[in-house]
Parts: sequence; C-alpha cells; structure tokens
Amino acid sequence: MSGLIEPKVLKGFRDFLPEQERERAAIERALTRAFESHGFAPIDTPAIEYAEVLLGKGGGETDKQVYRFLDHGGRDVALRFDLTVPFARFMAAHAEELYLPFKRYHIAKVWRGENTQRGRYREFTQCDFDVVGVDSPSADFEILLAMHASFAALGFERITIRLSHRGVLNRFLDRIGAGGASADVLRAIDKIGKIGAEEVAGILRPIVGEREAAEILDFIEPDGDFESTLAKMTRLAGGEAEDTARLSELRRLIAALGLEDRFALDPSITRGLDYYTGIVCETFLTELPEIGSVCSGGRYNSLASLYTKRELPGVGASVGLDRLVAAFAELNVKVDAASGTEVLVFNLDDSLGAYYHRVARSLREAGLSCEVYPERKKLAAQFAFAEKKGTPVAVICGEEEAASDTVTVKDLRGRRSSERLTLQAGIEHIKRVLDRLSP
Amino acid sequence: MSGLIEPKVLKGFRDFLPEQERERAAIERALTRAFESHGFAPIDTPAIEYAEVLLGKGGGETDKQVYRFLDHGGRDVALRFDLTVPFARFMAAHAEELYLPFKRYHIAKVWRGENTQRGRYREFTQCDFDVVGVDSPSADFEILLAMHASFAALGFERITIRLSHRGVLNRFLDRIGAGGASADVLRAIDKIGKIGAEEVAGILRPIVGEREAAEILDFIEPDGDFESTLAKMTRLAGGEAEDTARLSELRRLIAALGLEDRFALDPSITRGLDYYTGIVCETFLTELPEIGSVCSGGRYNSLASLYTKRELPGVGASVGLDRLVAAFAELNVKVDAASGTEVLVFNLDDSLGAYYHRVARSLREAGLSCEVYPERKKLAAQFAFAEKKGTPVAVICGEEEAASDTVTVKDLRGRRSSERLTLQAGIEHIKRVLDRLSP
Repeated sequence: MSGLIEPKVLKGFRDFLPEQERERAAIERALTRAFESHGFAPIDTPAIEYAEVLLGKGGGETDKQVYRFLDHGGRDVALRFDLTVPFARFMAAHAEELYLPFKRYHIAKVWRGENTQRGRYREFTQCDFDVVGVDSPSADFEILLAMHASFAALGFERITIRLSHRGVLNRFLDRIGAGGASADVLRAIDKIGKIGAEEVAGILRPIVGEREAAEILDFIEPDGDFESTLAKMTRLAGGEAEDTARLSELRRLIAALGLEDRFALDPSITRGLDYYTGIVCETFLTELPEIGSVCSGGRYNSLASLYTKRELPGVGASVGLDRLVAAFAELNVKVDAASGTEVLVFNLDDSLGAYYHRVARSLREAGLSCEVYPERKKLAAQFAFAEKKGTPVAVICGEEEAASDTVTVKDLRGRRSSERLTLQAGIEHIKRVLDRLSP
Repeated sequence: MSGLIEPKVLKGFRDFLPEQERERAAIERALTRAFESHGFAPIDTPAIEYAEVLLGKGGGETDKQVYRFLDHGGRDVALRFDLTVPFARFMAAHAEELYLPFKRYHIAKVWRGENTQRGRYREFTQCDFDVVGVDSPSADFEILLAMHASFAALGFERITIRLSHRGVLNRFLDRIGAGGASADVLRAIDKIGKIGAEEVAGILRPIVGEREAAEILDFIEPDGDFESTLAKMTRLAGGEAEDTARLSELRRLIAALGLEDRFALDPSITRGLDYYTGIVCETFLTELPEIGSVCSGGRYNSLASLYTKRELPGVGASVGLDRLVAAFAELNVKVDAASGTEVLVFNLDDSLGAYYHRVARSLREAGLSCEVYPERKKLAAQFAFAEKKGTPVAVICGEEEAASDTVTVKDLRGRRSSERLTLQAGIEHIKRVLDRLSP
C-alpha cells in the first residue's frame, strides 16, 4: 500500500452518506417551510471572517475553540463558530438596505475545535431565526410559534417549550441580595437539569450564602401550571412589573391559540448567558428530556453593539439540528425524506439503450425518479443493485417490449411482474405500487 | 465611533441578502430535483480535511490558493477547494458500504484564495454530479442528460452542450507526432474560445512546430453537424476506434431523445486537465457564450487512485452556480424563487394580538406565508414595511372585525380593499389576488 494516502477524515468531522444527507436535507426543508410560512427571510454570510469581527477585541471561553489562521494576504481570519455573531455584523453592515423589524433565518454549518469526547462534532449545522428591531409580546410570541411550527413541520409535536423571563429572575436575585453574583448564579441554575438540585445548591452556597441558595432553589421550582407559577414568581420577585406583564400576555396568546399543552412556565430556564435580557426558552422532547434542549433562545437588548451605535433589540432561537437528528434516531422517528430512485430501468441489451432512455424520460416526465442501469450485466447483478440502492420498482424490457413499445414492470418488494404494459399503463401501475409502499 | 469594530467582510466573500439567498436556494432546489429525478443521491463531506488528503503529497497550481493552517491539535489541515478531491477520498473510504455504480450529487461551498480582480469569489458554491464504477455510453449519456435536465429544471433551455472525446484527440496528436507535448497543447487549445485561433497558433508553434500547429487548428474546427464533424475527426485521428464508436453511440442516444438541437460535437473542447480520458463537455448559453461554460465535465479513468488501488472509472460534470447566477442577472432571467411573506396582518390595537395571531394561523394552515406586524404603529409605517418587504396583501382588522370574526383584506398592489369577509372568504380572496400576481 506504499504511496497511497489514507482516506481518513479529521476527528469530529463526518461524511454524510445518501441516507443521512437526505434526512438532513429533509429536516432543513421542513424547517425552511416553517420559517417561510411565518414570514422569516433567508440570509447567508461568509464561512470565513476577520477574526476581530467574530471575536471582538477581547478573548473568552469560545475563543480557544475557534479555527483561526492567517490567510494568503496575512489577514487574521477565523471560521464562524456560530450564526449569531455573523448576524450581528450583517445587521450593522446592511442596516440601511434592510427594513425593520427584520426577520431572518439562517441554516448553515459552523466550526468549533471542541473536545469531541462529549459526543460533540467540530463541524455542525446551526439553524437560527430572529426578529430584530422590535421589543413586543407579539414578536416574542412569533418566535415561540416558529419554534412550535418547526417541530410540527417535522411531524413531531411531542415537545414542551419551557420559558421564563430574565427580568423576573434578576429582580428576585436583587431582592435577596444575590444580584452582583448573577453571572455565576445563572450558570449554576442552568445546570439543574443535568446535575440536580443538591449539586446546584452546593455550587450556589459559597457564592451567595446558605439561605440565599435555598431561596434560589425555591424560586426556580415551578408551582403547577403557568398561572400559579407566574403568581409565585411575581410574589418572590417583589410584585408586578413589565417582565411579569410580558409573561402574562404571552400566556394569553398561547391560550388563544390553544397551545397550552406545548408551553410551560419554568423559572429554572436561564440560558446561562449574560446576553439575554427578556424571555428565555428551551424545548424538550417528551420522551427524551435527558438529551437537553433541542431548540433554545430568548430576547436580547442589543444585537450589534460591537459594530454599531444603533439599538437593535431582538428575540430569536436556534434549533440544534445534530442533537435533533441523534434524538430522532434514538426515538426511531422517520422524517419524510426524498425517496431516492423509484424506478430502475434494467439493461438487457446494450443495443436497446435508446429505448431504455426514452422510457426513463417518460417516467421522469410523469414525476418519477428513475435511472437506467448503465451497462449490460446479469439480471442477478441488476436486482442486487436495486436492492442495495433501495429502489422499489424495476422496468424490464427486452426486444419484444421495445418492438411493441411496451414495458414489463416488476414490483421488487412484492416480487410481482406485470408484463408488456403500454407506457401509460406502466406509469399508472408504478404509481400504484409506490402508493402502497408509502407510509 | 471609537471602540466599534467595522462590520466588514473579507475581499472575495459575500453576504447574501434575502432576495439573493432565495434565488440561490431556488437554483439549488431545481438542480436537486433534476439530479434526484435521474437517480443521483446526495452526499456531503467535511469543509476541513487533512491537507495531505486534499493536496496529495506533491504541490501544484491550486495549492497556493488553498486555505491551509494548523488546527488546535497541530494537524496540518485545509479547507476544501473543490468537491472532486473530497469525493475521491469519500469513495475510497466508503467503497465497502456503497454499491457500484454510485451516482452522487454534491452541492456545497468551496474556498480558494484566488485573485479577486477577475471577478472571482474566494467562497463559492460548487455543484458536482458523477456516475462512478462504470464505463459505458449509457453512463456518459446520463451525465449529458442530467446536464440538460439541470437547465430544463431552471426553466432555461437556451443552451448548447458541446462535447468531444479525449481519446480521439490523443490519437490525432500521436499521429502528427505532438503526443508528448499534449498537456501544454491541451491547455493552449482550451483557450481558443477566449483568445482566438491566431493566438492559439502562436502558443502552439514553439511547442509542436509550424505545420503541426496548423494541423491542430484544422482538427479542432467543427465541420458542420455532429455526423460530418465525427467523420472528419475519425479521418484525422487515423480511423475508427472505441472512442469514435462511443461518440457515435452518444449521437444515436441524443437523436433517440430528440435532443439534437441541444448538443454539438466540438473537437476544440478539451477541458485542459490531464485528468480526463474519455468524453469531455462544456455548456454555453446561447445568448451569452462569452461568459464561458456554465457546466463542464467528462470521463476519467480512475477517480480515487491517490487513496486506493481499486479502479474507479467515472464520468461527471459540475455546474458553475455563481457564474450562472451572474449570467441570469445579465439576461434578466428570473428563477422561480419562494415568494417571501405573502400576507401581513396589520396591528391596529395591541389588545387584539390574540385575534391577529389566530387569523395568521388560519392563513398558514391554508398554505399562505404570513406574519403579524409585531407592535402597534401608524398605518403608514405598516404599509411602508409591507412595501419594503415586498408583501402583496394586507389583512387589516380592528375591533369591528375581531368582534364579528371577519377580516378586511387589502390588495396592496391593486390598492383595493374587501371589507369584513369571513375568514374563509378572506382566504379565497387572498389566493385570487396572489394568483393574479404570479407570473
């Protein structure tokens, strides 16, 4: 084997074979449908940007994971590690051309040199959607609706979207005197789903004190339904304010659309990041809560303050596509992906190539996906190929069929043949066979 | 402005605003339809690979343009600069899992640090499709058909696909004693569309001699139709062989499908690269031949010989998506892109938010894309927003509509209102308005 290069991929990176790529594409198409139907518009940004643009002037936790290098012109550049920072830069760059409020979605790959031992990938797809330039209950609600619609479009509604409001939490922390420590506190609370209340209390005690830790654990515990939990949060935060009014209005909108079963108020949702200032939300799969949130987001005060003085408040969320794919695999959920080749036209005789290709064209014109086996081979080899590729129907024509302008159709799953049909009858027959197979 | 970071993108890179991104997505969808209907299956590969895997052990012309760097583990890595090399690596890595012949398509971004002065981008989309594992006229023809179908799916058939065969050219060059110089000769011939016969002769003379240069220029000149040109090529190459038989069979298949107008035999097509061994082809737009080929390809002997001893002959082509977009812009060709938001539900009163969102949901359930203006603003501002976003229909509801469960629909292009329709009548009315607007 000397001289050959080993065809290996980097750790944390993946090839997508047809079945996997079809599933990924089907999920993206479903999400696109959901976003488009709610008035979100697609954008794209470069994979490579100036490092300063992506990382700002400081450094931070993410920086170490960023793929950063000098380009041919000696410029300090980096690969995007999320879609939020490029979107902020995009809004600052195009503020004059765009209208506000601007609703965008962006489905694209991002790269992080993360530790792959936690089952994370270094190349993964993000899917973000935001409404920028407005701070209103209606805008918050459209994000919640789009989150719900994303799963509905995937044919998967066994989810709960848990939401809270950072304003209420902040008021509560201020009231008990833990406001100054809030970044650490947020991060600790954020872990409750993974490590449990006892561990979180253990982290909190040295930061905020024994009694305060207990009070925080009490605050983040929901109290039954949305209304009672909101009443408890309001009381512990020191009374009504704009933040509780916002949650109350969202509750009203959720009820008006009959979506109470899909949404829950959960004060333990914080999203951990300083970034958020209003509502925060996470989505859990009913049957698989332990994999964590598959779609998360919230409201922020100022999207693009690194690049512009213009105030751009917004609200948005992000679907964790790779986590979702893993969850669907575990739950055995099938996304309605394109079916691949539906019909294989067998090759019994190279001299009939023109006939085979004419038949294939007619099938395609009738909306069927179809290919001609590209050379004369034993029938067994052609059957094996169809099976391997998952093609359910064969069209088998010899001289007799070609001479009479007919086709023999074989249902490869049912193993039944219908001989010498006219092309039109053949097409109708194939469609009936495929209809029977479709779930 | 001190402290702010300029929101600029790197030279050669681009943001895609919604209209551009919708067009790009529509083109990708059309191509996907064409490939799927011909039995090609989608794959994807990592954007980042080992430099050795992408570049081989040597260096070459492309290498200087490759984005190459050390990752966090000190590995020598690079961004993919085309989709052919990753596909070769993919086939070597997955040969055991895959069936042959394997037909794949791959639409993805690639990166090259090219000189941007020629109007080239450093990040661009490639779209490749290949049939690997077979060498037959039928496989060649499926690539030609898929090339044609790609343009048909885009609603744009004013093209000519010019093809030739490297075997015939090689036999001819051998016969006149110019075989040894063939790499240089190929590159010179490849330039004829850009620089003309005189200049090509000037390049050829010092390489092959005066008389040979003239003979080459004669050979690459088509002689009328496919048949006469094939006869001339056959004669100048020294008679019939497998290569001329292949061209002859392709001509028969093209005629059998009535596609003679779309294909031409053109011995000046060489594709310049050593890589090709069989047919070679390029696609020109009838009205804009000067932008060069928008879809090119050919047959190669051995796809993955860098990585495996397994013989993998194949045939494939690649659509130049960015060149095509530029050409469509110049020709004012519109691709049938998603229309964006069709209906804006106005906000006359924040307290009617629940009604607005219920109406929006009904419109979405009826298949319309729709959004609720997210806050109470002057009507003029909401009309201006709809106009800026290109939304053709407004649904305007005040207390009266909400109380009577009706909607007022305004056709924003025709500027006509229909007041207080039932929701069902409103939806039908909106669909009629949209039907009138669609091209």
